[in-house]
Amino acid sequence: MCSLPVPREPLRRVAVTGGTHGNEMSGVYLARHWLRDPGELRRPSFSAVPVLANPKAAAACRRYVGRDLNRTFTSAFLTARAVPDDPYEVTRARELNRLLGPKASGGAFDFVLDLHNTTANMGTCLIADAPHNIFALHLCRHLQLQSPERPCRVFLYQLPGEESFAVDSVAKNGMALELGPQPQGVLRADMFSQMRALVAAALDFIELFNQGTAFPAFEMEAYRAVRRVDFPRAEDGDLAGTVHPQLQDRDFEPLQPGAPVFQLFSGADVLFEGESAVYPVFINEAAYYEKGIAFVQSEKLTFFVPALPALPPAPTPDP
Amino acid sequence: MCSLPVPREPLRRVAVTGGTHGNEMSGVYLARHWLRDPGELRRPSFSAVPVLANPKAAAACRRYVGRDLNRTFTSAFLTARAVPDDPYEVTRARELNRLLGPKASGGAFDFVLDLHNTTANMGTCLIADAPHNIFALHLCRHLQLQSPERPCRVFLYQLPGEESFAVDSVAKNGMALELGPQPQGVLRADMFSQMRALVAAALDFIELFNQGTAFPAFEMEAYRAVRRVDFPRAEDGDLAGTVHPQLQDRDFEPLQPGAPVFQLFSGADVLFEGESAVYPVFINEAAYYEKGIAFVQSEKLTFFVPALPALPPAPTPDP
Repeated sequence: MCSLPVPREPLRRVAVTGGTHGNEMSGVYLARHWLRDPGELRRPSFSAVPVLANPKAAAACRRYVGRDLNRTFTSAFLTARAVPDDPYEVTRARELNRLLGPKASGGAFDFVLDLHNTTANMGTCLIADAPHNIFALHLCRHLQLQSPERPCRVFLYQLPGEESFAVDSVAKNGMALELGPQPQGVLRADMFSQMRALVAAALDFIELFNQGTAFPAFEMEAYRAVRRVDFPRAEDGDLAGTVHPQLQDRDFEPLQPGAPVFQLFSGADVLFEGESAVYPVFINEAAYYEKGIAFVQSEKLTFFVPALPALPPAPTPDP
Repeated sequence: MCSLPVPREPLRRVAVTGGTHGNEMSGVYLARHWLRDPGELRRPSFSAVPVLANPKAAAACRRYVGRDLNRTFTSAFLTARAVPDDPYEVTRARELNRLLGPKASGGAFDFVLDLHNTTANMGTCLIADAPHNIFALHLCRHLQLQSPERPCRVFLYQLPGEESFAVDSVAKNGMALELGPQPQGVLRADMFSQMRALVAAALDFIELFNQGTAFPAFEMEAYRAVRRVDFPRAEDGDLAGTVHPQLQDRDFEPLQPGAPVFQLFSGADVLFEGESAVYPVFINEAAYYEKGIAFVQSEKLTFFVPALPALPPAPTPDP
């Protein structure tokens, strides 16, 4: 498995983005809070920059106003010539790419941590793009070790061959926090505190790394997206049923062949026709209805993450 | 306590309205299902009419597109002269008033049952306007007796002196079903089935009444709205905190003086300063942020509901 090069210098330029989706309230209100009072984001070797990623959508308390910002960081959108009727989020993605990127360039931020909520029962979920992102996976491991009593799953969202499209992909390194269940437009104190603590722990990890800490190799368990599964549909394209009560809220649990997946309005059940167990995630996420996704089918995998070597000592200035 | 006159004739004109708020999915999809296949709404003495109350908002999966439809059935909106820039929902309220009303007229529908979801943890909640609505309270009692193992609370929403503003107020009699918690834009199979069963039981009750059944007097426990409580706010009007974890999800439970109500982003708690216990409902409802309502403070009351007398026997046609 090929790996991204690990950082060989301290991470100085770090950003925490909230409100990439304007109705995912933990990140919206953490970003707003830190923009007023950024003290919590300071560490001895760096200060993370808070960013309210989609201010217009946050003001309207909607996921987006023109198109989904977090699907807009592809080279097609970032490099196309700006035209007057570009959706707001296309313009905003280019602004964020100038601020935090440019994507895939040496001038990009060292790390972007992007904050999300889901209506699905996913608990604390850490989203990295792919298993070759060693630095992000060590960060995930660090977060898992902070509260070993609470499940904290790692989800690898990138489908094979798919270009990265999320805001954190404009930085050299990044990942997302996904906390649920929380309804769109609702700010739950428990989720808010938990996300705040996770961000603090992530910044602590970066500080440890910057200070010269080495992190040993380990074996990681993660869930990797395999395919997206749509709702049952009537002839006119509208829903013909919804997620079955036996699947609802069972994110990350194995779905066995023959188990019910959907309940039709007619009362009939639709059964899972796969040949072996899969692991559904983002089950019945509100924002995915319009994308034609009832859940994301994932596979559970275990893989080896190589050690993250300590940074070389900083050169001592000449006497 | 003054009482509304009870019906002295069978209820023939009955409507079930869903999607009055376009992102409350149980009602949206029940209405759409029944518009295709209304068989479930037929009873021997009447057929209930399914109505998708706010089709534009349902198509956009938003609560409303112009203004909250379910606050628009006041005489000021219903009787004002139509102007071209009326919000969509003002026009739609007048259409529904023509279809199901006119409000407070002899030509109005006999009963409207309006279907809602909340993000609050309110379980099954039956919403009537006031304790003098004897027919609706007998219907509530009937629904409570259908599943005595499950709490099924009655909430009286009308504040003292307030004009009725909800869609069911255009009919001679009406009430609303409020099921939660369900995120906006999510269709949970369990809520869908439960609402479907409640509607069936409500229509069964009307059928029993139409067939000449009498219902005895009883003592009812209900929650009555007393006042609306806003979130703590910063100087710029934005949230300074949110519902305290110890209050979150505790709808209908007593809130004692001195108990925490809000958790500020600073970490400090805001305590309840009342002099006696109150009963919060609609705690952290997504749609109420913009209305400045963190929860509705209610009082628990017990009152006597007089008997609902049997209809007089239908006159026998002359031989």
